[in-house]
Amino acid sequence: MNTKARTAITPTRAENYADWYQQVIRAADLAENSPVRGCMVIKPWGYALWENMQRVLDGMFKDTGHQNAYFPLFIPLSFMQKEAAHVEGFAKECAVVTHHRLEVGPDGKLVPTGELEEPLIVRPTSETIIGDAFSRWVQSYRDLPLLINQWANVVRWEMRTRMFLRTTEFLWQEGHTAHATRQEAQEETMRMLGVYATFAEQWLAMPVIQGEKTAGERFPGADQTFCIEAMMQDRKALQAGTSHFLGQNFAKASGIQFLDQNGTHQHAWTTSWGASTRLIGGLIMTHGDDDGLVLPPKLAPAHIVILPIFRAEEDRPKVLEYCHGVARELRALSYAGRTLQVIVDERDERGGDKVWHWVKKGVPLRVEVGPRDIEKDALFVARRDQGPKDKQSIPRAEFMGKVAALLQAIQDSLLARATAHRAQHTRHIDSREEFYRFFTPERELEGAPTPIHGGFALTHFSGEVELEKQIRDDLSVTVRCIPLEPGEAGVCPFTGKPSAQRVVWAKSY
Amino acid sequence: MNTKARTAITPTRAENYADWYQQVIRAADLAENSPVRGCMVIKPWGYALWENMQRVLDGMFKDTGHQNAYFPLFIPLSFMQKEAAHVEGFAKECAVVTHHRLEVGPDGKLVPTGELEEPLIVRPTSETIIGDAFSRWVQSYRDLPLLINQWANVVRWEMRTRMFLRTTEFLWQEGHTAHATRQEAQEETMRMLGVYATFAEQWLAMPVIQGEKTAGERFPGADQTFCIEAMMQDRKALQAGTSHFLGQNFAKASGIQFLDQNGTHQHAWTTSWGASTRLIGGLIMTHGDDDGLVLPPKLAPAHIVILPIFRAEEDRPKVLEYCHGVARELRALSYAGRTLQVIVDERDERGGDKVWHWVKKGVPLRVEVGPRDIEKDALFVARRDQGPKDKQSIPRAEFMGKVAALLQAIQDSLLARATAHRAQHTRHIDSREEFYRFFTPERELEGAPTPIHGGFALTHFSGEVELEKQIRDDLSVTVRCIPLEPGEAGVCPFTGKPSAQRVVWAKSY
Repeated sequence: MNTKARTAITPTRAENYADWYQQVIRAADLAENSPVRGCMVIKPWGYALWENMQRVLDGMFKDTGHQNAYFPLFIPLSFMQKEAAHVEGFAKECAVVTHHRLEVGPDGKLVPTGELEEPLIVRPTSETIIGDAFSRWVQSYRDLPLLINQWANVVRWEMRTRMFLRTTEFLWQEGHTAHATRQEAQEETMRMLGVYATFAEQWLAMPVIQGEKTAGERFPGADQTFCIEAMMQDRKALQAGTSHFLGQNFAKASGIQFLDQNGTHQHAWTTSWGASTRLIGGLIMTHGDDDGLVLPPKLAPAHIVILPIFRAEEDRPKVLEYCHGVARELRALSYAGRTLQVIVDERDERGGDKVWHWVKKGVPLRVEVGPRDIEKDALFVARRDQGPKDKQSIPRAEFMGKVAALLQAIQDSLLARATAHRAQHTRHIDSREEFYRFFTPERELEGAPTPIHGGFALTHFSGEVELEKQIRDDLSVTVRCIPLEPGEAGVCPFTGKPSAQRVVWAKSY
Repeated sequence: MNTKARTAITPTRAENYADWYQQVIRAADLAENSPVRGCMVIKPWGYALWENMQRVLDGMFKDTGHQNAYFPLFIPLSFMQKEAAHVEGFAKECAVVTHHRLEVGPDGKLVPTGELEEPLIVRPTSETIIGDAFSRWVQSYRDLPLLINQWANVVRWEMRTRMFLRTTEFLWQEGHTAHATRQEAQEETMRMLGVYATFAEQWLAMPVIQGEKTAGERFPGADQTFCIEAMMQDRKALQAGTSHFLGQNFAKASGIQFLDQNGTHQHAWTTSWGASTRLIGGLIMTHGDDDGLVLPPKLAPAHIVILPIFRAEEDRPKVLEYCHGVARELRALSYAGRTLQVIVDERDERGGDKVWHWVKKGVPLRVEVGPRDIEKDALFVARRDQGPKDKQSIPRAEFMGKVAALLQAIQDSLLARATAHRAQHTRHIDSREEFYRFFTPERELEGAPTPIHGGFALTHFSGEVELEKQIRDDLSVTVRCIPLEPGEAGVCPFTGKPSAQRVVWAKSY
């Protein structure tokens, strides 16, 4: 089935996973590279997916008491220098605005003029500019907690970019909160990590491990960084959302102070947390197959596509009328809080081309209707999570009654499949040799085009920064997280020292 | 009633309209200036208003067949030079990114390094970068019409800024469409102008005149620019949305070509149309009064605020319980397609302070509940569009039955009031003398603090660019638009030449 002739995507995942990823994006018409280095254009099908993600996440943020606001795109250079660790992490590769005017030069070309007294940075993240606002908004303990979220574009000047996974400009949300006590801020940090985990599992159908980053992988300026990590089909880890406990670092840098109930000035405790269009990359790499994109029904821009099938032109009106009737009936139904989104594809294309068009776009249910189906008042239904030829004739009335259950069955099967894949490629490892072998499989030694390493390795670890660096240099493998579920204590296979719990090692995006 | 002691906003509209505007924004906590020159922070109450506007407009765009997408923030300098008129208009005052790295200099301060080979412009509008994408997306007549919208931030380096009305960075949507024929593109241009007019009148309760701009006020690069113009309470005009017929200008500049049904290469016909956070400024200046913001119920972040009133602490639990019961009952109802948004203000503030807090924020209905109301199972209800003391006791059950009608009555009264205000200050003028007098009222001659000119003048006009310039120089008055509804032909009072129809003159924002 994975031979070139019989798959819609070339190369297949097994042949070249990185190329397969780009080709799925192209075949589904999700996005494309733009003439601006490292920036992509998100096309309507990709943007509709992002809108669905936004809608659900935004609802979850509001249900946990957050309000949206909007802060400036630009950050004065001096702001970036306020928090020492933050400078190190973010003030390196970013877009710098130095001029505010263009004039026509002697050769007729535009030349930047009007040099700014202080350059402006296009925000790579907004802790400093939002911290400045919070320092004005927070005066008394009555102003706390302050629970703000922003949907925005950010820019990080990346050298190597890959659509959705790492682009110079990307879309995201960034939550920023301030609290009166350390405990409240820590609770908030974990609450939002939980929101991301719930969203990943229940909406993206993407199982994740919740955990804490080691010091080396921490957000610059944070006391603690927590993350959700998912396994892609090439067994690499994708960090799909982060939640940071910032201690009082940014409150001190920005002067976020409040009068407590005893009349004493205190610095607030802050958090920040973010998720981005990278989630779309995670969705593609979790569920996509060699025929293209596979969409979890809960987030699919369209739940169902209806394909009118007829050979004789005189059948056209009757078939189209029937198809639109089915569409109308379906649009009166809903699934997972959303009215069913139904497309009737009336284009004058060959039937087979139309089928593959929607297979590649990942629509969960495909319904084919021809004159003989109409006679039987039945529909030919294909599930995108099954083979393209696994079609089933279902009486129309029966389909209406069970379409929501069918969509949920697809959603469930995607999560189950991804969970099984992760389980299959996760191993508890207790010796250094096995660890190195796990991440250096024979296939890689033989120089296969897509070297696939072992997956997730769970080992005890005594936590030395130098050791972590050595393993990264040797294998390009890092500690993805220290899982929240602690498990049992043991012995570090690298140092022989005691270890409180196992950590997750993997190659990563 | 407009004396200082008895209004919540100082100064009043009559005392100083421009200052009143700033104070309403501050008192309602809609936005604030940021440390970044000309950029504002949109605070939660202002952003919630924008979200409601976005939701409605986005639905109207989708209902007319448009899809959302997202294009890069940055535009290569060379792209701005592709369309000659466009360069003139937009390539002057904009933010220019020249470097992509920061390094610590000898004095320990960050210095821009990594100079770009080609500077990037932060988009002031996206015709050129979207045109580039369209040139790839459009190949055949089958790809048309292409109907795209983008929600985005844009940057125009403004010298004088005013929150919501003119800021360096602002939020907006920009529609961009390509069509096979001139006629289709012209129909699209007018369709979207109609969408803006419908939104302004039915949602913002802001009556508008639809019309065409004169050549001097046209979008740089457009063949025709259409707009909606509203009268603010100081009788100035606010351009609240524009729709441009771009002819083939941008299609030629960007190479948007298609093979028509005869196999001939043709340039597409394009349009663009936009509305921005400026609409919030329009809402404030149309409905606000000397007590602060007045929100049209259809767009209000909250429809109703409930204030628990009690003097004795032992009444607190009973009153709060009753208030939350009322809120729950209200939240099961809806108005204008949205579940009723209800706030119960439990804060420990003086009752009077709480009342004024919500008056200034413009919430349409205020409900006060004390122990005696509970005994009667009745609510004290105040409408924001009426005086703060016009309260009415309404039995709870009766209120539930008529709350949606009450909200609609407020929506209607705001539109009626604004329409009457516009009618009162719009005059048909047929002589040069009267025209000059209309825009130079005695109060201005006497040097009153807020010079209020006449309003909208409708005159015949023979269309000379020089004459329009002379009047602008003399009076700061311009042709706001040539109304779509043509009216009768006549004689231009300035030149004595024939004129096809009257045009609208006004001072403007």
